[in-house]
This record gives sequence, structure tokens and C-alpha cells, in this order.
Amino acid sequence: MHINETKIKVRYAETDQMGVVYHSNYLVWFEVGRTEFISATGVSYSDMEKNDILIPVVEVNCKYAGSAKYEDEIIVKTWIKELSPAKVIFEYNILKENDDKIIVRGSTTHVFVNRDFKIINIKKKYTDIWEKLAKLIDE
Amino acid sequence: MHINETKIKVRYAETDQMGVVYHSNYLVWFEVGRTEFISATGVSYSDMEKNDILIPVVEVNCKYAGSAKYEDEIIVKTWIKELSPAKVIFEYNILKENDDKIIVRGSTTHVFVNRDFKIINIKKKYTDIWEKLAKLIDE
Amino acid sequence: MHINETKIKVRYAETDQMGVVYHSNYLVWFEVGRTEFISATGVSYSDMEKNDILIPVVEVNCKYAGSAKYEDEIIVKTWIKELSPAKVIFEYNILKENDDKIIVRGSTTHVFVNRDFKIINIKKKYTDIWEKLAKLIDE
Amino acid sequence: MHINETKIKVRYAETDQMGVVYHSNYLVWFEVGRTEFISATGVSYSDMEKNDILIPVVEVNCKYAGSAKYEDEIIVKTWIKELSPAKVIFEYNILKENDDKIIVRGSTTHVFVNRDFKIINIKKKYTDIWEKLAKLIDE
Repeated sequence: MHINETKIKVRYAETDQMGVVYHSNYLVWFEVGRTEFISATGVSYSDMEKNDILIPVVEVNCKYAGSAKYEDEIIVKTWIKELSPAKVIFEYNILKENDDKIIVRGSTTHVFVNRDFKIINIKKKYTDIWEKLAKLIDE
Repeated sequence: MHINETKIKVRYAETDQMGVVYHSNYLVWFEVGRTEFISATGVSYSDMEKNDILIPVVEVNCKYAGSAKYEDEIIVKTWIKELSPAKVIFEYNILKENDDKIIVRGSTTHVFVNRDFKIINIKKKYTDIWEKLAKLIDE
Repeated sequence: MHINETKIKVRYAETDQMGVVYHSNYLVWFEVGRTEFISATGVSYSDMEKNDILIPVVEVNCKYAGSAKYEDEIIVKTWIKELSPAKVIFEYNILKENDDKIIVRGSTTHVFVNRDFKIINIKKKYTDIWEKLAKLIDE
Repeated sequence: MHINETKIKVRYAETDQMGVVYHSNYLVWFEVGRTEFISATGVSYSDMEKNDILIPVVEVNCKYAGSAKYEDEIIVKTWIKELSPAKVIFEYNILKENDDKIIVRGSTTHVFVNRDFKIINIKKKYTDIWEKLAKLIDE
């Protein structure tokens, strides 16, 4: 199974008055990890959108066991938990560099749709991309 | 049970290149609803923080059945699903004004901690606030 | 001269670890003020975009003399400083409610373009909208 | 003169419905560049805050000559234009990688203050940090 590791440095803008990263920003980091994961197929998500494939989020689950601070070096681990012709579920672990503790665990569920937000069967319609995603699971 | 209704007008900054609100912003709207809900106790969340009570998020779940667009008038409905001396679970429904369809459903779980992020027993330590929150459930 | 007043309540997400609103968020509040100002013409900015008029920002200037905090009630005053067929300059004052002190002053310069980001002459091409904007200056 | 170059990859969250990066996000990128610039002194901005030195923004100027898109690789060039014991002015150029065109130019003015937001004389009070910053200008 392919696991992508993305590095992120915490921005001041991402903190809140509690002195830690505001909780919704982890969802943005999931997106950063997902973008890099998809790039590993050889087809970027930008390219997919140009080809009329959108992958909007339909569900998010996220558990916070710790918190990141300004200037922390963060690792986002991203992998595919489940893939079907109509949807894909990504999972994420967020850690600080040089620390094994997982501070945030999450998953996001996405559907494959076109510009009109109609569900598409990615396996049939874009077999090439389907195979590239599927390969990252078996890897 | 007390249900708070907060109105929000979608900001341009909240949209993304899909032409709809970026999914993590709904978590910010949950926070706006939660802030107003807590105000209904007569003690604002700002006041709580000044009294050394923080209520960080430890879990978020969110399902997206639709999407909001720039300048849409949005309603966030917020209520308490569960309250214990150590934690509180809020639930949310997000709708467009003048439309019964719920576009986003979510919940957030929070713990009561002090400035050092140590769990506190709010029922014992801040009985007054505990009773005010509890009252909003029985209302 | 028409001056729009918009109310905003500071969100927790808008604060940073300094305990005050992160400085780039005032630009978002300018946008909220501008959106409401434009609505006062009777044609919303959403409608303009549907009619192929975009008004991107080409310059921002902003001076901070104070700061807003979580749950503060804020007023954004917005007006047009300059209007020509190719561009418009908005000015803004940001204050706390019930306080005369201006905490942030700013201006944003915008050009009128179409979807292909080509400059358009709004006076010639959309005389109707031009007149509505011009009227708000003379008011 | 020391010029810091920071790489940033555009996030989906940073785009808006115009299909480009929302204008206030460039201010966040300025902050990312500034953070790295300050690190080059050997004292991180996190460390400065722990030592009771805050450097809030009091003025921002920004000109947009182009726009960045999702997944673009961006370079933020950051340098100090002016340094005095009470304030510092940073300047920034933002470019796409492998393209000489500057898409955004900006400057931010900051004051040196303590936790109570009182102006401090950094040259007298923190001579060590003063010298490190000054050295980056003469470099």
C-alpha cells in the first residue's frame, strides 16, 4: 500500500488564541497530503479537474490527540483505505517530525463527479486513472 | 432542548475553485454556532477562557449533502447532544435560508481543560456554568 | 456619498496565538463590507460575476492602529473613493461597536475584467451598473 | 543584503471561485517568508515570542500583477528594507518557479513590542538579536 508523506511547517496564521493550530486547519493539511498522494499516480488533481473529474469531500472524521504549534515540522501520512468506481476514502495520520506520537487521525470520503456534480463511474469513464489509483493500493 | 440558530452570509474568501464553500469552513461555522449557543447561558466563551476554562475540540464528524455558494444566506442550528462533567458533544445542521434541505450535518466533541490542558471536572469546579449548560439541554 | 456599515462578530478561527485577530483577516472583512456595498446598487456581486464582470483586487493598503479580539462586535465602514470605467478604489474603516477609535484603515483597488481577465470598460459595456455605482458616490 | 527564498505549493483551500489564489493569502505567504528570514538569524520567531518580543504588523502594502493557481510552485523572496530599534520593514516578491515575472510585490511594517503591546527598543533591550538582524542587511 502506498503511503505518502508530506512535510508541512506550521504557519502563524494557522494558530489561534489557544496557542495551538486551529482545528479546521488539519483538514487543509489532509488536502495537502491528498494532493501529493494523487500526484504519485502521475496525474495531478489539477489535471483531473481539467478533464472534468472533481473529487469533492462528502464526509470528514477527525480525532485530535495532541496539537501542533507555530513553526513545528509536521508529517502528514496519507493512504487510500477504500476505492470503488464511485468513491474513494483517504486516511491520514499527522505527526510531529522526530516524534512517533500521532497527534491527529482522520479520514475523508470523496465521490467522483463531473462539473455538473453528477456522479461518474471513474473505472469505466477514466480507466487509466482508475488503474493508477488502484495500483497505489496494491503497491 | 435549546437549539441556537445563527445566520451567516457566505464570504468570497470561503469559496474555492470548485465554485462552492471549501469544506473546512463548515467547521468554522460550527464554531460560530457554538459561540452563540454558549452565549445563551449568559457566560460567553471569552469569559470562560478568562476563568481558565478551555473547551478544545477532540473529535469532528461532518457529512456534506449539498454545498453553499458565495452570498448564500446560511442557518447554523446548534444544540448539545451530550454533556458530562468532563466533555460536551455539540451537533449541528446547516441549511440555506428558506430551504428545508440540510446541506451539512456535523458533531464536535470537546473536553473541558485548564490553560495547562489538564482535564477539569466542570460540574465540581464551575457548578454555576455546569448548571447553565445543563439547563439548555432540559429547556 | 454612500457609506455602508456592516457588522461582524469576531470568530475564534480569526484569532492567532498573539490573542488578537490575525492581520490578513481584515482583508476578508473588507471583502464582506465591499459585498454589502455593491448589493446596495441593487445588483449583487454574484450577479455581476454571472454577467461576466469580475472585479479582482490589484492593490491593497492597510494600516493597523489597534486590534480586535474574539467575540468583539466590529463595524466595517465601506465607501468608494474613486471610480473610473476601468477601475474602482474602495476605502474602509474598521471600528469596534460603541467605540469611536478606528482600529484599521485600508483601501483596495480593483479592475473590471471579464472571465478571461481582459480589462473591460464598464461604463460602455454595462452602463446600467456603472450608473448605479456612480450614484452611490454622489448620494 | 540577505534575501530569503521560500518555496510554497498552492493549496486548494487557498483558491477562490475566480479559480485563483484569494488575495489575502499572499499576506500569509509573506508571513511564511518572514518566518524563514528570521530563522536565518539563528533565533526563530517562536523563540523571540518566548523571550517576550512580539513583532505585530502595523502596515501592509501589496500590489498584484498576476495570480497563482492550485498546485503552482511559488517562490517568496523576503528581505529587510529598513530596520530601526523600534520597527522593521520587510519587502517581498512572489514569483512562480521557473518564471521571472513577479506576480505580487509587497511590504509589511512591524513594531517590536512586549506581551503588553508596549513598544520596546530592541537595540538596547535585545542587542544580540538586533545585531543578528542588522547583519542580514549588510550581508
